[in-house]
Amino acid sequence: MSKRVKEIEGGICAPLGFKAAAISCGIKNPAVERLDLALIYSEFPTVGSAVYTQNQVCAAPVRLSSSYLKSAEPRAIIVNSGNANACTGPTGILNARAMASATSRALGLKQREVQVCSTGIIGVQLPIERIEPRIPELVAALKVDGDPPARAIMTSDTRPKSVSVSVKIGDVKVRIGAIAKGAGMINPHMATMLCFVTTDAAISKAEIAAATREAVDNSFNRISVDGDMSTNDTVVVMANHQAGNKTITRGGEGSAEFREALTAVMLCLAKRIVADGERVTKLVEVQVRGAASNLDAERVARAVANSKLVKCSWNGNDPNWGRILHAVGYSGARVKEEMVNIHLNGVIATQNGLTAATDIEKLAAAVSGPEFTVGIDLNIGKGEFNMFTSDLSPEYVIFNREEYSLTKKK
Amino acid sequence: MSKRVKEIEGGICAPLGFKAAAISCGIKNPAVERLDLALIYSEFPTVGSAVYTQNQVCAAPVRLSSSYLKSAEPRAIIVNSGNANACTGPTGILNARAMASATSRALGLKQREVQVCSTGIIGVQLPIERIEPRIPELVAALKVDGDPPARAIMTSDTRPKSVSVSVKIGDVKVRIGAIAKGAGMINPHMATMLCFVTTDAAISKAEIAAATREAVDNSFNRISVDGDMSTNDTVVVMANHQAGNKTITRGGEGSAEFREALTAVMLCLAKRIVADGERVTKLVEVQVRGAASNLDAERVARAVANSKLVKCSWNGNDPNWGRILHAVGYSGARVKEEMVNIHLNGVIATQNGLTAATDIEKLAAAVSGPEFTVGIDLNIGKGEFNMFTSDLSPEYVIFNREEYSLTKKK
Repeated sequence: MSKRVKEIEGGICAPLGFKAAAISCGIKNPAVERLDLALIYSEFPTVGSAVYTQNQVCAAPVRLSSSYLKSAEPRAIIVNSGNANACTGPTGILNARAMASATSRALGLKQREVQVCSTGIIGVQLPIERIEPRIPELVAALKVDGDPPARAIMTSDTRPKSVSVSVKIGDVKVRIGAIAKGAGMINPHMATMLCFVTTDAAISKAEIAAATREAVDNSFNRISVDGDMSTNDTVVVMANHQAGNKTITRGGEGSAEFREALTAVMLCLAKRIVADGERVTKLVEVQVRGAASNLDAERVARAVANSKLVKCSWNGNDPNWGRILHAVGYSGARVKEEMVNIHLNGVIATQNGLTAATDIEKLAAAVSGPEFTVGIDLNIGKGEFNMFTSDLSPEYVIFNREEYSLTKKK
Repeated sequence: MSKRVKEIEGGICAPLGFKAAAISCGIKNPAVERLDLALIYSEFPTVGSAVYTQNQVCAAPVRLSSSYLKSAEPRAIIVNSGNANACTGPTGILNARAMASATSRALGLKQREVQVCSTGIIGVQLPIERIEPRIPELVAALKVDGDPPARAIMTSDTRPKSVSVSVKIGDVKVRIGAIAKGAGMINPHMATMLCFVTTDAAISKAEIAAATREAVDNSFNRISVDGDMSTNDTVVVMANHQAGNKTITRGGEGSAEFREALTAVMLCLAKRIVADGERVTKLVEVQVRGAASNLDAERVARAVANSKLVKCSWNGNDPNWGRILHAVGYSGARVKEEMVNIHLNGVIATQNGLTAATDIEKLAAAVSGPEFTVGIDLNIGKGEFNMFTSDLSPEYVIFNREEYSLTKKK
């Protein structure tokens, strides 16, 4: 991934002292055997941090987990797919609490040392009677294998998403592992997105919190598939100090290395989430330069990344720089039309706000691959922002109108 | 339309003293005979007002027309379809000026008494050599018939959009007529949208400007099809004082009646623009009530009206209130989840943030017609906002990826 950060095997069980398991409870459809309940567990005490959805309509497990985190460190994460336990009122809170309680009893932990997450349909009560009695069995299945949880948290994802890396802190190798799920509702300020990160680093509470915030800002907060924001988005990081490194503190030795590695892990998963977005065919990096400020650059990037017309054109391999320039114009950023240059995968399409002398075939080729960049230089300042987005396909609309409904999906 | 505002025949030539014409110049495709150049003309002096796109990337005719309006009243509007004359640099300005100049010469007006508008592909220079020599012929064709211009300004519209009304100012009947085009890029803060309004009312300059602003805010600024904003949006209003009414002034006699009529005209066309949006199958009115402020209500309405997931569900007759509640949650408005009620075409779907005890079939029926309302009551204040939006169809994506490209469309 970089000179300092090496990809390794093992996923969330690559770091020392973590175990995981998943089972099938029939939450979605009792008739179909599919992994839908997962557990991640640290055998040793941890420090932890989390980032939750900013949506004011947020799910019961998000409310519960965020309150737990205020007074305890997370030692375990229990997560189900198939039902989001969102828009479920007081009963939803009781059900989320029952998941935490059963998990903590089976593991000998305090209830608030358990983070609870859910993803799936909303507005329907969690079938807690299918979950609660199975938790001892889930705990008994814990082993050093991160793969089953990566599969168990999938909803409309087509592929499990898992990554692990090592990085040297001083002379000591520490490991970071993570799994994630995404697919629909991927948007600024996180997505229908769950990400669970384990690390054996020794790290201070303040530093793990700051590093998590920074990594999320540079990864999951820079992706967009459909511009909607979920009620259940959660990133949880657990660090269990088993690597034997000198404790990483804010601004201290190893802080830069650890943050680089944590960001690399989350960015890797964020890109996979976009590429595996619902019926997505293209992963597009929007690179804005030369804005009056970084905030202006972000405005431009988000306007382009979320424009339905721009995303439609990419789906059709159409190098329609005019639509991009439109979106730049209405982004709210300061723009001088006659200064704007646009490159499609490095090929100039727009020079000083006008069509560049590039063959249309060459431009079409630039946007025809499964991955390309869109470079937008406003040429009026030094503001920069990068983000990842996708095309918009007819299949996305069909998928979201036909396969999902009130009783089928979040 | 209301007790005071009556629909009448005649379109933009219903008001006294206006003539119009349209011809085919082959701007789009010289091989196909299609109306693409239109002229609207007042035989008498006018006062006028206009609202132009807020996009910082704006077309040459918008730049020119807005500068003309600062020092003159508009007596004529010359408009072409097929080419937007946008992203065309200094040559684009010269071409727009040539259109104004030829029109003013043929009509015996000052150049700045002509408003110039264009709609169509961007980034390609206007074929001015096909337009300029034809303008005398266009002027010669002027007559009391508003229908040809309504057709000539269409791009991806499937139907011409024209309306005319009468309203009593004191004892005197005054008339307002209008044509519009829309289709793609319909969005808050106007659309790929042109609207030309004629009236024979006697009205002050200040009042026509204020009435136009108010009517646009309550119509074209409350519609959304795809959330993009065009470079060419323009509304021009010309009033020629031929009705014989006592001049309407701000707050004076007839002001309320005139504003009601002007708003009714624009709202009628705005709704037709949404209903005729690219591959749209449903016209949806989002009605937000009980917000902490009107601005909060607007935030909620725009979040719901622009949510891709919400619009997909409508396309599939799916009464997915969960997606609506999500969008409410991330709108930025103050929201108490447990207070929110949602009605689909008057049928309660969500009560106090939870699923209401309504049959799913009844809810599906509520969103299955070509027009329905979505009522969202936040129950925490008195803020209100209404707007019109559409569903999002697979055909929209196919249309915008296949039929249009750099060389085919704005």
